[in-house]
Amino acid sequence: MTAEIKTIAWEDGRVVMIDQRKLPRREVYVVCRDYKQVIAAIKKMVIRGAPAIGIAAAMGLALVAGKFRGKSRKDFDRKWAVMCREMAAARPTAVNLFWAIERMNGVVKQSSSAGPDELAGLLHKEAETILAEDVAANRRMGAFGQKLLADGDVVLTHCNAGALATGGYGTALGVIRAAHEAGKKVSVFADETRPFLQGARLTAWELQKCDIPVTLISDNAAGHLLKTGKINAVIVGADRIAANGDVANKIGTYSLSVLARENGVPFYVAAPESTIDRTLSEGYKIPIEERSPDEVTHCGGRRIAPEGVSALNVAFDVTPKPTLRLLSRKRG
Amino acid sequence: MTAEIKTIAWEDGRVVMIDQRKLPRREVYVVCRDYKQVIAAIKKMVIRGAPAIGIAAAMGLALVAGKFRGKSRKDFDRKWAVMCREMAAARPTAVNLFWAIERMNGVVKQSSSAGPDELAGLLHKEAETILAEDVAANRRMGAFGQKLLADGDVVLTHCNAGALATGGYGTALGVIRAAHEAGKKVSVFADETRPFLQGARLTAWELQKCDIPVTLISDNAAGHLLKTGKINAVIVGADRIAANGDVANKIGTYSLSVLARENGVPFYVAAPESTIDRTLSEGYKIPIEERSPDEVTHCGGRRIAPEGVSALNVAFDVTPKPTLRLLSRKRG
Repeated sequence: MTAEIKTIAWEDGRVVMIDQRKLPRREVYVVCRDYKQVIAAIKKMVIRGAPAIGIAAAMGLALVAGKFRGKSRKDFDRKWAVMCREMAAARPTAVNLFWAIERMNGVVKQSSSAGPDELAGLLHKEAETILAEDVAANRRMGAFGQKLLADGDVVLTHCNAGALATGGYGTALGVIRAAHEAGKKVSVFADETRPFLQGARLTAWELQKCDIPVTLISDNAAGHLLKTGKINAVIVGADRIAANGDVANKIGTYSLSVLARENGVPFYVAAPESTIDRTLSEGYKIPIEERSPDEVTHCGGRRIAPEGVSALNVAFDVTPKPTLRLLSRKRG
Repeated sequence: MTAEIKTIAWEDGRVVMIDQRKLPRREVYVVCRDYKQVIAAIKKMVIRGAPAIGIAAAMGLALVAGKFRGKSRKDFDRKWAVMCREMAAARPTAVNLFWAIERMNGVVKQSSSAGPDELAGLLHKEAETILAEDVAANRRMGAFGQKLLADGDVVLTHCNAGALATGGYGTALGVIRAAHEAGKKVSVFADETRPFLQGARLTAWELQKCDIPVTLISDNAAGHLLKTGKINAVIVGADRIAANGDVANKIGTYSLSVLARENGVPFYVAAPESTIDRTLSEGYKIPIEERSPDEVTHCGGRRIAPEGVSALNVAFDVTPKPTLRLLSRKRG
């Protein structure tokens, strides 16, 4: 029923990812043989979405271990911390990146007597476990979350929190998929999500593959549709959730949360535990990535703005917990 | 100081418009010799912006009269009403279109004894008057409105309510220009305004020409910037204002009004009297144009969404008066 979308996989000691920059025009795959190639893939957004970034980081670090086969544990230990730091610098906001690095580091610490050959096997296994756990968590979130949706509901989502943003199935889209699989007729408004167009390019593509009715809208249209009663629920993913419940997610999420509350529409955040950062008390402490202004001055590969104009490209915003608490009521 | 931007002009019995679809890449002009070409130009958004559409309609109808030179008044009268109806069908939301047609029709009615030759002159004169009055109204709005801005203010604007949307100078951008001309250091965040990108293409271009600092942002970033205190005022134009004060304007305006109020930032609508529709009691009665889904599935001339995906392209939304009333307080 629902098509299998493979975001990232370990194949013959290499990490293979679908190139999300090229979707939906072309389905091409990037093969990483070295952890630096994985870092580059995360930076360039070949792979994106907080849980998927975490999985990619884990697999990238498993590649590191492979490089030390036949060498001494001392050689490995000398480089490992540096490589973890390089990986951690790939992107700043999604906490799953740091969470995954920490998990991989835990394996290294716990296996202090293992040589690089054994470590390579253990780290590969851990990366595969992180992937499998992520898919399982998404399916559980789907099973829980779909109860919040009724037959006939129209759901608004922002960015892409689907199979492509995770190990598979998806967080926000996982909830929608689960409702669909439970036989509920749900349909989706997908914000196009400028500047990177994850909604237009990825969410629309995924939902088409899953046979879930989807209508693409410009980000500007969300408020009007909420106000005119066309939307029953908003579901988004998250890049980092602070200890107090503040949610960092794709730029525009905060606006949707305010507009949903203004119009009495429930607003849900679907995210696995790996997205919760218990070390940060509040959302304003979450580092917010600024990306290249070129993403704003260009669209569809072409310059849309005048030469020389300044542009600001803040990639995430923070939805404060009080807003969420007011919104995430179950409708009665 | 501020560059002259000529949106539309009457030249040797023809209507000449800058082609706003081509900006900022190319400055090319469309020459209309016939009212049907003017209708086509309005429909295809060669010219857009409520006041500019009104002026184009007036000039288009002045072209009609020229066609009847040497013919009888009876011939003219037989066609005039039909041609006015055709012009009125060009676009549904901006009321300035119907207002301008009504003014041109008033000239015809008041000159019941004039032949087509005399009418042609009168109608041309009326169209030029409408243009001149619009520029004068913008300058007056600028003079009044600029008092609402302080030295150092950062203003957010949406779509394009500048010289290109009017006979010249602009409504929302007119206020910003007037503050700039009064020596205040104002700078602007311009929403790119998907799907038609009036902000990225036109507002950024106009403000560059006027030497007013402008930073382009994706529409998604506006909420975050309002929340983080980066914006002191929001100023937009209007396509139609109902008798009760409800404002129809470019899709996304309603969202900005809610986000501005949420964050205690004043929200101003700058529009001439020709944009007020006293025949409609409330905003929900304003006809809202839906345009081709292709504008959403494409960007920068290229398809961005998967083949076969549905898209909804609502071009305007309505900002309710109560929101406005709460917001349009002068800051102390």
